[in-house]
Amino acid sequence: MTQKIKKIAILTGGGDCPGLNAVIRAVTRTAILEYGYEVIGYRYGYRGLYNNDFIPLTIDAVSGILHRGGTILYSSNKDNLFDYAVEENGVMIKKDVSDVAVENLKKENVDALIVIGGDGTLTSARDFSRKGVNVIGVPKTIDNDLVGTDVTFGFNTAIDVATEALDRLHTTAESHHRIMLLEVMGRNAGWIALESGIAGSADVILVPEIPYNINKIVEQIKDRQSKGRVFSIIVVAEGAKPLDGEVVVNKVVEDSPDPIRLGGIANKLAHDLEKLIKGNEIRSTVLGHTQRGGNTSTYDRILSTRYGVAAVELISEGRFGNMVCLKGNNISEISLEDVIGNIKNVDPECELVKVARKIGISLGD
Amino acid sequence: MTQKIKKIAILTGGGDCPGLNAVIRAVTRTAILEYGYEVIGYRYGYRGLYNNDFIPLTIDAVSGILHRGGTILYSSNKDNLFDYAVEENGVMIKKDVSDVAVENLKKENVDALIVIGGDGTLTSARDFSRKGVNVIGVPKTIDNDLVGTDVTFGFNTAIDVATEALDRLHTTAESHHRIMLLEVMGRNAGWIALESGIAGSADVILVPEIPYNINKIVEQIKDRQSKGRVFSIIVVAEGAKPLDGEVVVNKVVEDSPDPIRLGGIANKLAHDLEKLIKGNEIRSTVLGHTQRGGNTSTYDRILSTRYGVAAVELISEGRFGNMVCLKGNNISEISLEDVIGNIKNVDPECELVKVARKIGISLGD
Amino acid sequence: MTQKIKKIAILTGGGDCPGLNAVIRAVTRTAILEYGYEVIGYRYGYRGLYNNDFIPLTIDAVSGILHRGGTILYSSNKDNLFDYAVEENGVMIKKDVSDVAVENLKKENVDALIVIGGDGTLTSARDFSRKGVNVIGVPKTIDNDLVGTDVTFGFNTAIDVATEALDRLHTTAESHHRIMLLEVMGRNAGWIALESGIAGSADVILVPEIPYNINKIVEQIKDRQSKGRVFSIIVVAEGAKPLDGEVVVNKVVEDSPDPIRLGGIANKLAHDLEKLIKGNEIRSTVLGHTQRGGNTSTYDRILSTRYGVAAVELISEGRFGNMVCLKGNNISEISLEDVIGNIKNVDPECELVKVARKIGISLGD
Amino acid sequence: MTQKIKKIAILTGGGDCPGLNAVIRAVTRTAILEYGYEVIGYRYGYRGLYNNDFIPLTIDAVSGILHRGGTILYSSNKDNLFDYAVEENGVMIKKDVSDVAVENLKKENVDALIVIGGDGTLTSARDFSRKGVNVIGVPKTIDNDLVGTDVTFGFNTAIDVATEALDRLHTTAESHHRIMLLEVMGRNAGWIALESGIAGSADVILVPEIPYNINKIVEQIKDRQSKGRVFSIIVVAEGAKPLDGEVVVNKVVEDSPDPIRLGGIANKLAHDLEKLIKGNEIRSTVLGHTQRGGNTSTYDRILSTRYGVAAVELISEGRFGNMVCLKGNNISEISLEDVIGNIKNVDPECELVKVARKIGISLGD
Repeated sequence: MTQKIKKIAILTGGGDCPGLNAVIRAVTRTAILEYGYEVIGYRYGYRGLYNNDFIPLTIDAVSGILHRGGTILYSSNKDNLFDYAVEENGVMIKKDVSDVAVENLKKENVDALIVIGGDGTLTSARDFSRKGVNVIGVPKTIDNDLVGTDVTFGFNTAIDVATEALDRLHTTAESHHRIMLLEVMGRNAGWIALESGIAGSADVILVPEIPYNINKIVEQIKDRQSKGRVFSIIVVAEGAKPLDGEVVVNKVVEDSPDPIRLGGIANKLAHDLEKLIKGNEIRSTVLGHTQRGGNTSTYDRILSTRYGVAAVELISEGRFGNMVCLKGNNISEISLEDVIGNIKNVDPECELVKVARKIGISLGD
Repeated sequence: MTQKIKKIAILTGGGDCPGLNAVIRAVTRTAILEYGYEVIGYRYGYRGLYNNDFIPLTIDAVSGILHRGGTILYSSNKDNLFDYAVEENGVMIKKDVSDVAVENLKKENVDALIVIGGDGTLTSARDFSRKGVNVIGVPKTIDNDLVGTDVTFGFNTAIDVATEALDRLHTTAESHHRIMLLEVMGRNAGWIALESGIAGSADVILVPEIPYNINKIVEQIKDRQSKGRVFSIIVVAEGAKPLDGEVVVNKVVEDSPDPIRLGGIANKLAHDLEKLIKGNEIRSTVLGHTQRGGNTSTYDRILSTRYGVAAVELISEGRFGNMVCLKGNNISEISLEDVIGNIKNVDPECELVKVARKIGISLGD
Repeated sequence: MTQKIKKIAILTGGGDCPGLNAVIRAVTRTAILEYGYEVIGYRYGYRGLYNNDFIPLTIDAVSGILHRGGTILYSSNKDNLFDYAVEENGVMIKKDVSDVAVENLKKENVDALIVIGGDGTLTSARDFSRKGVNVIGVPKTIDNDLVGTDVTFGFNTAIDVATEALDRLHTTAESHHRIMLLEVMGRNAGWIALESGIAGSADVILVPEIPYNINKIVEQIKDRQSKGRVFSIIVVAEGAKPLDGEVVVNKVVEDSPDPIRLGGIANKLAHDLEKLIKGNEIRSTVLGHTQRGGNTSTYDRILSTRYGVAAVELISEGRFGNMVCLKGNNISEISLEDVIGNIKNVDPECELVKVARKIGISLGD
Repeated sequence: MTQKIKKIAILTGGGDCPGLNAVIRAVTRTAILEYGYEVIGYRYGYRGLYNNDFIPLTIDAVSGILHRGGTILYSSNKDNLFDYAVEENGVMIKKDVSDVAVENLKKENVDALIVIGGDGTLTSARDFSRKGVNVIGVPKTIDNDLVGTDVTFGFNTAIDVATEALDRLHTTAESHHRIMLLEVMGRNAGWIALESGIAGSADVILVPEIPYNINKIVEQIKDRQSKGRVFSIIVVAEGAKPLDGEVVVNKVVEDSPDPIRLGGIANKLAHDLEKLIKGNEIRSTVLGHTQRGGNTSTYDRILSTRYGVAAVELISEGRFGNMVCLKGNNISEISLEDVIGNIKNVDPECELVKVARKIGISLGD
């Protein structure tokens, strides 16, 4: 028998991502206007659930946020209530405080909880589901590498930003006959590099899943030079790796006179290519956090809205323990048990990689 | 036995659409770099095929066009070579000149022809296929209403433009407590209105498939007013119709003192609403051709590139008479025989319409 | 002796304009952080001053609004308190209610009033100044046609929007060999048409100040055709007029079967050109309110911020009755007495018009 | 007596900059359409002049380039023909080869030369003028730090890009309560940081002209925290310096296990702030070359067009040895003798710095 739902809660966990606010808005509007639920939002992800820190979500509260990046509920990284840092007797220890969260939900009469997050956040969602909490997950990752859904919101916005940067770098590359490197997000999965590289007319795309051979990159550049194409554009995922060893990145050189953070793979690559290529200046740009903020793209606004509506529908039908997802063009759902712990990598044999190769893009291998 | 392909041709027909150049580029690069084909492009669609007016398409010729709207091959509307206007003995008559086209293809040793276009253009493509020409179709319509493919390129760019316009209209509507109407493309199918309306936070979305009752629109506006929301945004497809009769649009009033073209449905609606609503000024904007020009969106660049690569692959495999298409996330193909003559309308019961209703958008019914 | 200022007020009048919020923010922050003033904002322009309808403006109240178009204080058109429509004995009459406004300012202990608006709004500001109110004006008009300042905020955003539209129309014009008309704002002054036309690579620019000869436009188009340029772009200010008579626009044809609002000058021009030009399709787009909404451009954010700071500085120095203005690159001020009643038209001999002519743009004369 | 001009040449030197193509187009169109001159363009700046490497510039050659960043003439850095690296007897030596350039101009019957560039490029322009070449300079620097003109083209585009990045960083900063640093261009002059910081709602702006005290930055952040503003945005020019010493940037740590280029001031600052601030994560982004490429802004297209027209006008009047410039709103000219060797720095007492301070932005001092 389906429990009568009166009140639901939302929280957002992990890194921010364009579309979070659109999901919050769609959940709130659907819950109130269609189902007559009361809605609250926990602030700072699970930490707010632990601290019982929440705000009421009304139609007014979610007005004007559809297009805005970020999350009005704030977020926090790495707050796992099943292994949470708390102070006891003056010492910081890690312990399972999930019961506190469950108690808070009961105290506020929250009948169901919508958790918007990536792999880590959704792992906790599954664990709360196992403890009997009525949980619905909404997949979020800018990298589009979550198993169980074809597309996550935020990804389209990220590739828009990366593609616009590639468009900008083209004019400089052309005018100065340069090799321009753009480092984009993607520590484990190379989707942003792959799709923005295709859209942004890159000559070389380097992804974590396909270790690169620097000689192949040099070959591609020289091949272009031999055909009179005197500039090249390389897009590289932050997690891209050379075939022949590990990359040292984001390391702080403490013993240098003025210790500062080392740059990432794009800087290394620029350094390495400079030794091998003559006749082209090389410049690298790290796109960084501009990829995950700002206005949400049209595509992501629609996808987020569909996810938000679907999450409330699942609650209304009592189908808990699921994550909403996109399968082809259809919104569907999948058990939280089936989406945790893996990531969806770029298969070197997938259609998009083949497309890239066929139009003459080198994957560095 | 598959014929040995050495030379292929492309043409673009019908209204221009962001992504055409991206398809042309992907076809050309794949054909040359991957398969070693020679590529030519007929200019002005079928008219160029009839006049044997073509240009060679080389890697250089398609350089720098990926992001640009329009088509470097130009296009023409309504040039049906099976019923073509020609002058004979000083009189314009309509006749079937398709044999001339077939002869031209033979004369130039074109082994296969890629036709990029909408329903009309693809109907001719099918007819050429029936005559034995090796044809591959690539679906193009800004309205996303082609049967046989989930998404057509150009649509994402169009909803981007429409959504940005809605974003802009919001600030004025809010500041002046106005009702703002935006008329977008969609003579028969309401997809642009529906998706941009959801993404652009519209209060009312009117599509051709759901005739509107003006009293329901007034109700929605008054309901908003009663809740302190003193402005409203209405997005209306150019083909939207009232329940109670036909719309008179794009008519020239010849007998007015200074005869000029009448505006469309947005103007009519503004006029009608002004009589029924007090306390709000009403303004309408017709987005017009800005929806189909300019830079191609990231999404459309990728989709167009995938279509272009797939079209050449089908040629390489000798699988003629097909149109490339998107099914879910996969590029596939469908017989040209199965895609002609219907359009994919907005089903009033489809998920997107339900999403719109659930978040409180009125469809005017 | 300068009066000790403790509390100031702001109001925004007339049509909305990107940058209003930026001025409000700069005024509020400067007043509070630099001078320790209290700040309130009257809502709906002078109407709020009459109704004593205001909100406190705090640092929090103006947070996050710098980039947003519109005005958080709302605006109203044509509310002249010196000739105001009020009901007396059941009849609407017009009377001078400015004393009510002065009383309201006294009642709230407002020491100075910043009025942001165009010619009409600033005329009232001058009149209140004459009545002894401590007034500072801030010039606002999207059309950039205010006398007394070199540039008004909102103008740069408007030409950005118009130029982007011209960019978009170019690709369609090229692909289809069309003549595309874009109607932009400018009822009396043609600055938006002139500057966006230069920036957007128009072939013909029509402004109200230079009546056009349709034959000259046809000449320009045919001259282009003779050189193989098979498309043309015309940008026309809404107030552009033919040499040979008045334009009938925005008229409602009540006796047509389905009476609707007639289009403007772009529609008329399209209609007229169709009779004179063969071989090109003609399409017109009316940009409308998208020109004045949405995000504020970088240039306008900076100019608005400078104006807001300067307005508070003038208050702190007791220099009332002035309007802040831009002279060259410097912020300055000018007496409100000297800026009212004229508009700054496009001089047919000015440098920008000459620039347009020298690069081959026709002004239609 | 003014020499009869028949043929002119253009070259672009130094780093690329949005607007170069717009100048080239305006020069070419004005020269051909208005004055009937022939126009050629030397490629790769002065190097092309030395190598007599040029292309004819026709109306067709400059078609479609108005909005595009970069330069169709290409550019080169640091090619000073008065001290040029040439090989003699197998050894690279530096020598004055300016006579070769003068000879080339004579050989091609070039009557006047338009040089578009920054301080270095214009210094050579002056030197050629001293040698009797008919030279006109056009000022170019993305940093807006050239003496002799109020504004240089490219600067508005650069602050647009930087401001958009700040907008994007805001949503992430807010959602995660972070301190976000954005490093923008400006090795010697802080105009980009200053103007984009004002437009992008930064809390701290660091420019090379005002050495920063890190404790003042910490104060500003803590002051914000104390008022509930739990995030901060810092924009820092690449040349910003701490009060207490030199910055070590762009150094290669050769002896680290995997030697790579060190990041710049933003990275250093992030590192330093992390030690002083608790409770906020800190992230830095280096905008890099995306600031100088891509589409040219509306403002820069207009300014560049005006410069191009004015340069040809000066030639037609025989007023050589001058650089075109903007004074207030007027295009004017200044002797090349008066613009060389200095840069226009941010005066710590200038209006814009005061504006920043008055709205509560810290300059780090």
